[in-house]
Amino acid sequence: MLEEQFKVRFYETDALGHVNNTVVPMWIETGRLPIFEFFGEMSPETQSLIVARLEVDYARPIFFGSNVTVKTYVSRLGGSSFDISTEIWQKGELCAKGKTILVYFDFKEQKSIPLTDGLRSRLVTLTHPEHPLDA
Amino acid sequence: MLEEQFKVRFYETDALGHVNNTVVPMWIETGRLPIFEFFGEMSPETQSLIVARLEVDYARPIFFGSNVTVKTYVSRLGGSSFDISTEIWQKGELCAKGKTILVYFDFKEQKSIPLTDGLRSRLVTLTHPEHPLDA
Amino acid sequence: MLEEQFKVRFYETDALGHVNNTVVPMWIETGRLPIFEFFGEMSPETQSLIVARLEVDYARPIFFGSNVTVKTYVSRLGGSSFDISTEIWQKGELCAKGKTILVYFDFKEQKSIPLTDGLRSRLVTLTHPEHPLDA
Amino acid sequence: MLEEQFKVRFYETDALGHVNNTVVPMWIETGRLPIFEFFGEMSPETQSLIVARLEVDYARPIFFGSNVTVKTYVSRLGGSSFDISTEIWQKGELCAKGKTILVYFDFKEQKSIPLTDGLRSRLVTLTHPEHPLDA
Repeated sequence: MLEEQFKVRFYETDALGHVNNTVVPMWIETGRLPIFEFFGEMSPETQSLIVARLEVDYARPIFFGSNVTVKTYVSRLGGSSFDISTEIWQKGELCAKGKTILVYFDFKEQKSIPLTDGLRSRLVTLTHPEHPLDA
Repeated sequence: MLEEQFKVRFYETDALGHVNNTVVPMWIETGRLPIFEFFGEMSPETQSLIVARLEVDYARPIFFGSNVTVKTYVSRLGGSSFDISTEIWQKGELCAKGKTILVYFDFKEQKSIPLTDGLRSRLVTLTHPEHPLDA
Repeated sequence: MLEEQFKVRFYETDALGHVNNTVVPMWIETGRLPIFEFFGEMSPETQSLIVARLEVDYARPIFFGSNVTVKTYVSRLGGSSFDISTEIWQKGELCAKGKTILVYFDFKEQKSIPLTDGLRSRLVTLTHPEHPLDA
Repeated sequence: MLEEQFKVRFYETDALGHVNNTVVPMWIETGRLPIFEFFGEMSPETQSLIVARLEVDYARPIFFGSNVTVKTYVSRLGGSSFDISTEIWQKGELCAKGKTILVYFDFKEQKSIPLTDGLRSRLVTLTHPEHPLDA
């Protein structure tokens, strides 16, 4: 599992006085950046990871003035795709939970490709200590 | 159903050469703004709509240089919550599809409240012409 | 002069209840996109326009709930650079004024290049009707 | 002087392959947040700091994959306004330099108010070690 602290930025708030809902996907992307590095250089030609689906459950408002902790972990490992789960915590409370489905994709062939054993062995090091992988 | 054209903004692209995934939730929010007006003034005290969940399926990359069409419609109408579905089209192709679960909420009482008949009758005018409401 | 209406997006507001200052540069960029097209395809190899400097004067807060009018015009035409001025109006009042200095640049040679007569004649069509070009 | 490291976020890049120009004002705002705290709680009623003007000089492209260092310091201290200068460094090179003019403002009276001695003495601790204040 990866864990990182983000300062809440003032421009990330909205007129309702807390962090706008659309900011959470940005934090989710930022939290998983170290995983992108497993897959090498990203470019329109060589990119190998596609975001296929994003789910976010919003549990509590997130406020300016206190850091958030972003926990990122691999929650499913399929043949050519895998899920990354993300938890956003503030002041000891779970505020939002995300799941991103990523597909390993060959742009030249325009089809998904199996995750290599090397990638699988690296991804499996990033599971959540308390949650086994989903089937 | 609401339908709106957005110019793709250059800052919405990323280094992979197309629109970044995190932009789609922003377009989804912007597309449903007319629905927020049904619920009156939004403020931390009087706000009555909470985003409880967001789902986005990304089907195709979205490019700079051509408008997107954002179609927004009510796809489920529950007791105190409802779903808004959003389709993002570019050049005649469906590029992303979102679903947002919104809850009508009383902040003072800290509990959800039933949608009034007046709200229900306005929301029901915004369904998709080809898709009946989900149960 | 170019003139465009933008709906204020809710995520563009901040906890002070109006549009965050950092949004204005995004509108300024979006307003000048038609000028970018004069310079052909943009890419890290062929890009020919560099933003060298940005100035923004903030005169009044901008609010959610009412469109802004973005007026974009060429205000200086130099040898290899030019200025674009931008005005953000809401409800008949000038809320922010920007100036962007753009340089026509050859990335392979790593130096600025003179604006061609063809480019100059197109840029000069976009001046403000009431303001002659700056020297 | 304040100094902070920011990871470059992937969504902050654009299709030209580097960080979009509009991101720099967001980093500038984030870098000065500790100074906002000197002025107490921010709200539409009690807010006391207005961004009157922003200037950014862009010297070099900023890339994904390496942190930026954001240096924030007070560069002018006037009667009721002051300037904050910001430098964005990456890999030992100055990539962008900003100046923000902030005005201490009474919203009820709708006029600027003098900086108190207490505020001045706190602001003066944040000058740049090598640059005296501007007149």
